[in-house]
Amino acid sequence: MSQTAAGIAAGVLAREIGAGARLIRWLEEGDPRGRDALATIYPHTGQAHLIGITGPPGAGKSTLTNALISEQRKRGRRVGVIAVDPSSPFSGGAVLGDRVRMQTHALDTGVFIRSMGTRGQLGGLSRATFDAILVQDAMGYDVVIVETVGVGQDELDIVSLAHSTVIVSVPGLGDEVQAIKAGLLEAGDLFVVNKADREGADALTRQLELMLHLREQTRPSDWTPPLVHTTALTGQGVATLTDELDRHLAMLKASGGFAACLKERNRHMFESLLQEQAARQILAAALAEPSAAQLISAVEQGDIDPYSAAAQLVGCISLKFS
Amino acid sequence: MSQTAAGIAAGVLAREIGAGARLIRWLEEGDPRGRDALATIYPHTGQAHLIGITGPPGAGKSTLTNALISEQRKRGRRVGVIAVDPSSPFSGGAVLGDRVRMQTHALDTGVFIRSMGTRGQLGGLSRATFDAILVQDAMGYDVVIVETVGVGQDELDIVSLAHSTVIVSVPGLGDEVQAIKAGLLEAGDLFVVNKADREGADALTRQLELMLHLREQTRPSDWTPPLVHTTALTGQGVATLTDELDRHLAMLKASGGFAACLKERNRHMFESLLQEQAARQILAAALAEPSAAQLISAVEQGDIDPYSAAAQLVGCISLKFS
Repeated sequence: MSQTAAGIAAGVLAREIGAGARLIRWLEEGDPRGRDALATIYPHTGQAHLIGITGPPGAGKSTLTNALISEQRKRGRRVGVIAVDPSSPFSGGAVLGDRVRMQTHALDTGVFIRSMGTRGQLGGLSRATFDAILVQDAMGYDVVIVETVGVGQDELDIVSLAHSTVIVSVPGLGDEVQAIKAGLLEAGDLFVVNKADREGADALTRQLELMLHLREQTRPSDWTPPLVHTTALTGQGVATLTDELDRHLAMLKASGGFAACLKERNRHMFESLLQEQAARQILAAALAEPSAAQLISAVEQGDIDPYSAAAQLVGCISLKFS
Repeated sequence: MSQTAAGIAAGVLAREIGAGARLIRWLEEGDPRGRDALATIYPHTGQAHLIGITGPPGAGKSTLTNALISEQRKRGRRVGVIAVDPSSPFSGGAVLGDRVRMQTHALDTGVFIRSMGTRGQLGGLSRATFDAILVQDAMGYDVVIVETVGVGQDELDIVSLAHSTVIVSVPGLGDEVQAIKAGLLEAGDLFVVNKADREGADALTRQLELMLHLREQTRPSDWTPPLVHTTALTGQGVATLTDELDRHLAMLKASGGFAACLKERNRHMFESLLQEQAARQILAAALAEPSAAQLISAVEQGDIDPYSAAAQLVGCISLKFS
């Protein structure tokens, strides 16, 4: 495989999984070839249906993702998966049974599964995830599924920027409805009660229906989030979920929401990159400037609080665009 | 209560919980009075022993935190707690029994418990948490405990910047050791097997011992992380854990690690604030500059990839310090 940016970009556009994996790694590591290759493939992005799947640990998100892959494949679609969860079977972090189950799609070239660690990426988790989405998108995957554990700001950023966000609940966890209350309810486009054959499914369903009803009251919308019952392990309900996802996609395309979502994602990535690069440039310039270097050292010594110091440094910068 | 920055700062230094809660809210909301008050109280920070407690959901972190509070109070110390977990009983996200249990310390003015949501804070979760730490630190709490669910980059930032990081495991979750492998092992200063009376505790202990042994081999250190068995619900083992925390603190103070940790935290906060403020200034300036505004619009339209655009914008800025 060619190691140049142009070679890898060509491989990505030729839908070679090895090239895609290489490019994602370059982007994670901040390799300058990654940026060049991304610029080449970028015009080919913006087509995939980006589905976020989230919910508490133990809700069966990975099993549901696996069943969704099968259903989407049945419908002739190529599927990319990005697993953002250290304990996901996709990341190798689970018991043997799960890992074997996930191998179902290992030999299917219409499926590309990539797991993201939760640390060490330059620029943080949400940036690395968006990079991986861009790569899979450019590779022509019709659907890109992002599975996250749904706790933490990064994960919320990720799900809130997907086209369709699926919130998975499961009976018997006790506090999962509370966790949904705390932030995920607003972000959900579709709700799933998984392991719907378990005791407690009816009570959970009623709770969710009530919460969705309240949400509808406080925030009326053209889209009423469906509540789907699945048993991901057997595939029960997964066709219905896929139908609802297709319906949501059609609605987004008709309403302009699909384009708006992409625009927001672009802007979000740009601002995150700008923050990082601008701060790096300012820090480098400040360290070369005696008065500014003194300020940074005062911060480290605790002689000035970080807020005042940052405001002071930014305040004495004058900017010029050339 | 006075609503001025000076009044709230005085209240914080007089150890009034109401003033502390107000200041934390101001900082979360970006109220300019928050920054002024923080500048006033800042010289009084840097004394507290900052303890991070993390581990998978269901490990009993909140119960352990509660038991730690009791033990620290017995030793005559004032305790601040910051709960970064949407499903934590401290945030009101749990079943009634838990909530009642957490009320133990509700009437004790030597204890200040604050929970952080996982979204909506200006500048993100880790900034808001560090702000809350500064406030509790300035209020003279000897110990500040930060409880996080331990998934996501923000949480890892938080625990990695604490003086003493406690990783809590529990038998029977199946994949929790795997989750620890994925990132938390490196960050841990103390390891706890909670619910140590449960079946599987011995196997979990052996796994942890093996992992700690491997860590010792690959990364030798002056500090050998102790492995403590607790039953947080009854308080068993919590005195031992507190002894080990005290021993870790003494080691850090003797080795200069305590000061180094503070320095790193200051630098981290400063850089995060600088990123945000610099980017805000650059964006505002760019939108007023026709060529730069055009670039931002091209990003939103998807005509240029965010990496190239950010590099281009940063590249045509010249900086001057006055």
